[in-house]
Amino acid sequence: MAKRGLPKYQRQKYLSQKIKEDPFLTDEELAEKFSVSVQTIRLDRMELGIPELRERIKSVAEQSYSKVKSIAGREILGELVDIVLGERGISILETTEDMVFEKTRIVRGHYIFAQANSLAIAVIDAEVALTGVANIKYKVPVYAGEKLIAKAQVIRKRGNKYFVWVKIYVKQKEVFRGKFILVSMEGGMS
Amino acid sequence: MAKRGLPKYQRQKYLSQKIKEDPFLTDEELAEKFSVSVQTIRLDRMELGIPELRERIKSVAEQSYSKVKSIAGREILGELVDIVLGERGISILETTEDMVFEKTRIVRGHYIFAQANSLAIAVIDAEVALTGVANIKYKVPVYAGEKLIAKAQVIRKRGNKYFVWVKIYVKQKEVFRGKFILVSMEGGMS
Repeated sequence: MAKRGLPKYQRQKYLSQKIKEDPFLTDEELAEKFSVSVQTIRLDRMELGIPELRERIKSVAEQSYSKVKSIAGREILGELVDIVLGERGISILETTEDMVFEKTRIVRGHYIFAQANSLAIAVIDAEVALTGVANIKYKVPVYAGEKLIAKAQVIRKRGNKYFVWVKIYVKQKEVFRGKFILVSMEGGMS
Repeated sequence: MAKRGLPKYQRQKYLSQKIKEDPFLTDEELAEKFSVSVQTIRLDRMELGIPELRERIKSVAEQSYSKVKSIAGREILGELVDIVLGERGISILETTEDMVFEKTRIVRGHYIFAQANSLAIAVIDAEVALTGVANIKYKVPVYAGEKLIAKAQVIRKRGNKYFVWVKIYVKQKEVFRGKFILVSMEGGMS
């Protein structure tokens, strides 16, 4: 929904609303949304006192990590940027050159799996959880430098089993999806 | 099948047969099999000119890596110790302390996934292959120091898709199994 030619005060109102809804929008994405230059967005943010993306992520991440129970923060592959324990979570992984297959420059599947799996564990409201089953699908190859946005959702809980779906996106495109069944340790694995 | 109280020449005959069948048997396992001391097995091996386990693995591994087409050798997690391209393969991963979850000391699922996935790719008789789908099950928690023996089998090939099953064992116990559908790159992913 582009807001073409909006007066500045209206654009700034929408802008702060948009960023509140999705703190991970880049200045580039915002510029496109409002059909203005990136420089305009930067000035808007400065006037509104909204920090740059990196700072926003950092601040959201710090709050997120403190909520996780089932896994040590640094064991999550990717940056945890949002979490509602027992319900859902989001992590961001910036892929790098050392994650790729030499032959194809495509990011190796187990990094993507590790991002999804560690996020699935993190969202669980349990002291300790292990992966029991995972059904996963890689839909589009990912290249180094692409930013993976993983979204996990706890679908249901049955006894000591948690069903978690994770979808990973590059820009708005889904590149991976996985269904995980996690088992909280109190009841053992079965 | 224990060979209790066999005369030495018979034991040595069976011993070299056993090692030929399974070059990854440890001296301890062989000693148990033949109900003799580990020292006796070592002497037997020396007399028969059979190198120690580490050397046997190394020599088998060197032959194995040279056969792989679809993945660079060092991209395989675990040591590739046997391979028949397009059919089957075996890799061994010695798990270490830095692979575990802090809380539980259990090896993190994505290392096991990475061993299975990279082996599944390695056994494929194609220049380049990517993982499309994986259905996996973790059956028993693995602790640091345990040795994972992964066995992959190509079940069938349909067009540019390869169906590969991987089972991972600790001692003879199955700890993980996965079904992978790999896609060779010539036809793209779908």
